[in-house]
Amino acid sequence: MSTTDDPLSWAREYTPVLQSLGDEYDDEEPLAGYTIGLATHMEAVSGCLVETLARAGAEVLFTASEPQSTHGDVVQYLDDQPGITAFVREGMSDAEFDEAQHELLEREPDFLLDDGCELIAKVHDEHPEIAKQILGGGEQTTAGITRAEAMERDGVLEFPVYSVNDTPMKHFFDNVHGTGESALVNVSITTNTVITGQTVVVAGYGYCGRGIARKARGLGAQTVVTEVEPRKALQAHMDGHRVLSMPEAAEIGDIFITSTGTRDVIRREHFEAMQDGAQLANAGHFDVEIDLDGLAEYAESVSEPREGITRYTTPDGRHLNLLADGRLVNLTGPASDGHPAEIIDTTHAMMFVAADDLLTRDHDLGPGLYAIPDRLDRQMAERKLETLDIDTDAVTEKQVAYAEDWRNEGSAF
Amino acid sequence: MSTTDDPLSWAREYTPVLQSLGDEYDDEEPLAGYTIGLATHMEAVSGCLVETLARAGAEVLFTASEPQSTHGDVVQYLDDQPGITAFVREGMSDAEFDEAQHELLEREPDFLLDDGCELIAKVHDEHPEIAKQILGGGEQTTAGITRAEAMERDGVLEFPVYSVNDTPMKHFFDNVHGTGESALVNVSITTNTVITGQTVVVAGYGYCGRGIARKARGLGAQTVVTEVEPRKALQAHMDGHRVLSMPEAAEIGDIFITSTGTRDVIRREHFEAMQDGAQLANAGHFDVEIDLDGLAEYAESVSEPREGITRYTTPDGRHLNLLADGRLVNLTGPASDGHPAEIIDTTHAMMFVAADDLLTRDHDLGPGLYAIPDRLDRQMAERKLETLDIDTDAVTEKQVAYAEDWRNEGSAF
Amino acid sequence: MSTTDDPLSWAREYTPVLQSLGDEYDDEEPLAGYTIGLATHMEAVSGCLVETLARAGAEVLFTASEPQSTHGDVVQYLDDQPGITAFVREGMSDAEFDEAQHELLEREPDFLLDDGCELIAKVHDEHPEIAKQILGGGEQTTAGITRAEAMERDGVLEFPVYSVNDTPMKHFFDNVHGTGESALVNVSITTNTVITGQTVVVAGYGYCGRGIARKARGLGAQTVVTEVEPRKALQAHMDGHRVLSMPEAAEIGDIFITSTGTRDVIRREHFEAMQDGAQLANAGHFDVEIDLDGLAEYAESVSEPREGITRYTTPDGRHLNLLADGRLVNLTGPASDGHPAEIIDTTHAMMFVAADDLLTRDHDLGPGLYAIPDRLDRQMAERKLETLDIDTDAVTEKQVAYAEDWRNEGSAF
Amino acid sequence: MSTTDDPLSWAREYTPVLQSLGDEYDDEEPLAGYTIGLATHMEAVSGCLVETLARAGAEVLFTASEPQSTHGDVVQYLDDQPGITAFVREGMSDAEFDEAQHELLEREPDFLLDDGCELIAKVHDEHPEIAKQILGGGEQTTAGITRAEAMERDGVLEFPVYSVNDTPMKHFFDNVHGTGESALVNVSITTNTVITGQTVVVAGYGYCGRGIARKARGLGAQTVVTEVEPRKALQAHMDGHRVLSMPEAAEIGDIFITSTGTRDVIRREHFEAMQDGAQLANAGHFDVEIDLDGLAEYAESVSEPREGITRYTTPDGRHLNLLADGRLVNLTGPASDGHPAEIIDTTHAMMFVAADDLLTRDHDLGPGLYAIPDRLDRQMAERKLETLDIDTDAVTEKQVAYAEDWRNEGSAF
Repeated sequence: MSTTDDPLSWAREYTPVLQSLGDEYDDEEPLAGYTIGLATHMEAVSGCLVETLARAGAEVLFTASEPQSTHGDVVQYLDDQPGITAFVREGMSDAEFDEAQHELLEREPDFLLDDGCELIAKVHDEHPEIAKQILGGGEQTTAGITRAEAMERDGVLEFPVYSVNDTPMKHFFDNVHGTGESALVNVSITTNTVITGQTVVVAGYGYCGRGIARKARGLGAQTVVTEVEPRKALQAHMDGHRVLSMPEAAEIGDIFITSTGTRDVIRREHFEAMQDGAQLANAGHFDVEIDLDGLAEYAESVSEPREGITRYTTPDGRHLNLLADGRLVNLTGPASDGHPAEIIDTTHAMMFVAADDLLTRDHDLGPGLYAIPDRLDRQMAERKLETLDIDTDAVTEKQVAYAEDWRNEGSAF
Repeated sequence: MSTTDDPLSWAREYTPVLQSLGDEYDDEEPLAGYTIGLATHMEAVSGCLVETLARAGAEVLFTASEPQSTHGDVVQYLDDQPGITAFVREGMSDAEFDEAQHELLEREPDFLLDDGCELIAKVHDEHPEIAKQILGGGEQTTAGITRAEAMERDGVLEFPVYSVNDTPMKHFFDNVHGTGESALVNVSITTNTVITGQTVVVAGYGYCGRGIARKARGLGAQTVVTEVEPRKALQAHMDGHRVLSMPEAAEIGDIFITSTGTRDVIRREHFEAMQDGAQLANAGHFDVEIDLDGLAEYAESVSEPREGITRYTTPDGRHLNLLADGRLVNLTGPASDGHPAEIIDTTHAMMFVAADDLLTRDHDLGPGLYAIPDRLDRQMAERKLETLDIDTDAVTEKQVAYAEDWRNEGSAF
Repeated sequence: MSTTDDPLSWAREYTPVLQSLGDEYDDEEPLAGYTIGLATHMEAVSGCLVETLARAGAEVLFTASEPQSTHGDVVQYLDDQPGITAFVREGMSDAEFDEAQHELLEREPDFLLDDGCELIAKVHDEHPEIAKQILGGGEQTTAGITRAEAMERDGVLEFPVYSVNDTPMKHFFDNVHGTGESALVNVSITTNTVITGQTVVVAGYGYCGRGIARKARGLGAQTVVTEVEPRKALQAHMDGHRVLSMPEAAEIGDIFITSTGTRDVIRREHFEAMQDGAQLANAGHFDVEIDLDGLAEYAESVSEPREGITRYTTPDGRHLNLLADGRLVNLTGPASDGHPAEIIDTTHAMMFVAADDLLTRDHDLGPGLYAIPDRLDRQMAERKLETLDIDTDAVTEKQVAYAEDWRNEGSAF
Repeated sequence: MSTTDDPLSWAREYTPVLQSLGDEYDDEEPLAGYTIGLATHMEAVSGCLVETLARAGAEVLFTASEPQSTHGDVVQYLDDQPGITAFVREGMSDAEFDEAQHELLEREPDFLLDDGCELIAKVHDEHPEIAKQILGGGEQTTAGITRAEAMERDGVLEFPVYSVNDTPMKHFFDNVHGTGESALVNVSITTNTVITGQTVVVAGYGYCGRGIARKARGLGAQTVVTEVEPRKALQAHMDGHRVLSMPEAAEIGDIFITSTGTRDVIRREHFEAMQDGAQLANAGHFDVEIDLDGLAEYAESVSEPREGITRYTTPDGRHLNLLADGRLVNLTGPASDGHPAEIIDTTHAMMFVAADDLLTRDHDLGPGLYAIPDRLDRQMAERKLETLDIDTDAVTEKQVAYAEDWRNEGSAF
């Protein structure tokens, strides 16, 4: 058996949209002359984005958005390619990780493709002069958009940023299905237990939480949702989930998965109420959703009964089992290889298109957070459907006329 | 057994939100002095909206939005109440139905609560002078909003209209769950067959289509979705449905349900390809989604093998079975008693609130179509959760601070 | 439009298996010379069984197994055919119903096809001399088999009875899917409320209960299951339902559906704990699963707020709403037209085959309850798959050899 | 952080049934004096069975039933305990694995607890004198029971064997849910792709196949089932899956999972029809379900693009991706840690009880394959429900009387 495949070989097959963009752009090289700085979870699928940007002519500088999820072989392979420079390596400490991001920024990229608003926040906060030279950015996560919105409110943003996150394609494809399925799969593998028959508490009923809850139910779990927003709470109720406050949910949950975008969703008062053996996982961007400091303070002792699981023994002898150190369980669980390939493909393709659109069309946008134009989102969906060989119907002329005619002549009433 | 309950007795139990509004407003009577014209499917649940408007002090004039779904006992009961006048009766012809709407409009209401934009279109088209005096309106269906948007584009709207339809509450509650479940239930009852095991083709993957497709799958159907919009097509695919063009779907479907908002979605070329015994139903507002003229022309003969079913025999001897004359199957099927009560409760409560807000707060809105203010939608959700005795979590001060601080100090990275 | 279809016209299209049996047997008439007595819910689909028996040459005497579910037009149409005699009419009192069954039995049929063991129990109990002459019987319900087993234990059975009920085809097809879906559909239509978002309590997790619970979950309900058998309780738990005792379930249920085969599953102590507005329905054979006497004694007053619903007002003012008088909600609900056609088709085809097999093959079986031979069940499945145009795979010779060779030579280990 | 937990520490928390048996039996030691030989997938959860047998007094000799799934740390830990001897180590070759099984058998155990009928077949085939001395056995897999049935048909079985596999607890708990979920989870992790949106072909609709298909659908896949048995095919159809022959399925599947118990279910003619990128996985006991020799012969070249995946390139350039070498993907996938803990807990508890019952009750059973007594299965379910804190209802005296009285006096009809 020959095993000479390069580390992107598998991922390329599952990133048909990026590949089709690369195939279309590698002659013309529209991004030639631009330097693009990129931070994301750095594994094979992200590697395909780096590669596609380079194929389109860009000089690419890449780092990680999270230190634990880096795959060394991918980094090495990319760094060996012309026009690509790595600012990350596997097994970095938090300090080294921080330092690497600064190094990348000091190379003065023209454009930033970001995850969690890592680079965008850092360049404004600590390299304000460099920020002023940047032409634009793209951000792909809900958590990052929240951050960018706060920056916009504070009036500090120096360049236009496309919100890749807030598109139908991102929400319904990546958040609902990508995070939804991979969070559960990683909980199941990390703990070697089943989702079926468990009471799964999902904190937050945004797109990610909706996906997690729906698929947990699809596997046979009893699902509980906690929310702060009444419309989302009601939606969860109508979707067949029990909606409880966290103090109520804490008492009955077997598995807790947070996906809220905020901090301390599960905290001391909830730890105190939980059952022996409760599993705690986070599927939100930052490791703040479960109050880790509060958990450490509360616990009498800590052990690691299994890779990827930290067991906190409470004063009254219960075990609370934290998965993946409270970091994104779907990306940093011991068996995780990053977000599923065909999911991240479309999100990354949208990141590519965001860069291409902002850099090469003459938009003349001032600083601020901008929705990605709907036509780009729609084109991406068309491109994806093509790779799936799915046909849609065409709108007929009569249907166009019907939609435009509010008198609806010809209808029965 | 005593059977003295009035015809709204059952519906009142299943409209807790309307009842809570009535209880809150019937002392103060904020709508006193206003005349409200209302058109909707006129059965017991709608009757509760009429009653609640009257309790809040309004003079109410009501008609139907569709002639087949009127319940005579409800109309009679309401018409007997002070401050309420009926412009509809059971079993009206289309001409009488049209005439009744004109009579209502000629009474010069101050406000119109509408379904399908029936009254709003008619008053602009045929009573322009009356239209100029109207203070505002509310519209509750997707089809009606499409019509109102066309009117706005044409610059003909004379007063502000609240789009009750375009709210999270309406989409996720009424369209997905109300139409979704009741369309299937009525197909099942009308045909005396099961959804399980059938190939169900859902045309259109908007909120209604999504609900129909999801619940058909939940019952055990093989679902097929047809779409014209690529993002929706992709969403359907990711939700586990087969996405096909209508020509492909026509060949394999057992049950077809349209929910597109446009006309001729199923037409001659599709009828020609269908299997013997195919069932055709419509869940969109107007009876134009299945090309009924085309079907009649194509058929060699027509019979009625069962109440609510018209059987078209094709030239090659196949039977195509049209349900409920191609009108809204969930509202006009032979066993239908209108949209499910607790669903229409929240939609109608929002209609009530739209009237109250536009009439009694000093908005000074010019003519145009307006989104219902988000705070009203949120309040409605809170009111509904209260009736369900469901608790949500409160946002903590630390969480507020976290959302506002884009530097995210205190987080691990 | 011509509407000359006979009352079986629709049902014939949805009973392809019976039609294929009729087509195969109507030349040869293998049942000529035999008189078959039949009791079942007497609507159009059952009419197709009567017709098919007659096509195969039998003299058919039919009555109902339940007085409320009889359709007069079907009875009349059949009674007008040669070789068929009706012993039932629409709107019979319980006394008339009982009398009609006796009249049928007094005609001394050779064979009984039964539902709930109505005729079989009655002929043994009240016409013992006639019972001695009967050649055999077939029974199609779980409740009827329980009764026949008790008769066998008591040593009173006088002839062989085929248990049509206890076959894979019956359990997985009719009970899970037929009863499962139609019970929910009829609850939804009878109450004009949705299943979605409700807490649905299913009493009994046999094949029927499993279907009801699964489909309620599929529509978006929160499901609760009560059981007495630990394996079934555990199965329900693993299938994602909450398993509670009835006292616990009584406090939280919105809709209760019984499918246990026994009596008083919901009784005084449970009525006392229920929420205002609780809906009570039965999907088991007899109207004993909900303790109706206990409910009537407990209630302060009774009314009928809606067709098919009896409202019991409790001493503390709560409303408990009984559907379809506690009789089979899927068969006797106001909108019901009997079990779904294509479901009952296979069950009735099995009844047909049971009669044919016992009467025309020389089995020489003594009195007793017999499983229907597996080959007949398998043939029925093959016949049904053929009508659905579904292909299965063939077993290869190598696979046969593999299954027979316990040494598994050629396998890797 | 202290990390001193032994390698069974995590598994003990998720094997509450085994722990409760151990707690009950470790004083009395009913198995003292007996030597039990055990073969199974040897990881932490199986280790808990070994430990529980030892706690009950048995001398335990253990080996693996499959060479790839052995965890060295567990083997070492157990081997260090008194009364336990390992005949297996991590990383054995097939030849060493075979040799180790012989060594175990040569120690002349009194009882065999088996998986796949490994030890039972081998002792009869190659150590007939030892087989004659053995008091009994227990077998836990469908594949093993097929083998034992063949041995019984051939008249070679020398001792009684309890079929632990053929119990409600095993089928509904272990096969449907354990294999169902873990097969999908391991496919997802091994390939880093999602199940959602894929066309998943499940070969075989036994208990395992049913679980895989149901949960794949629950995650959002389009499911296809292939079968040879018409009742199972029809059941799959009614459960909402497309039923196709394998030649039809081969053309459209994205992921193929076999669970048939037989060989060559996917073979040359199917490989030729598959789409580029098809994923092939096996969830049946032996690695014969996918014709691996046929695949190797057909392929032009072979590579390993990712751990756990073998990529076969066909003559026309398509890639067919074999997972886990065609061995049980849920047990031998690269991220697998064996069957989920709480699932195998009940199966292993039943194995324990089988040994205890056959060895310590005076059954006087001759050689043959025996169903495990229903009371043992029931007790196991009760024990499991107790660990879950789930209450069932009690049968009332009136209900007992009702079931026994076929005349059903007191019922309405």
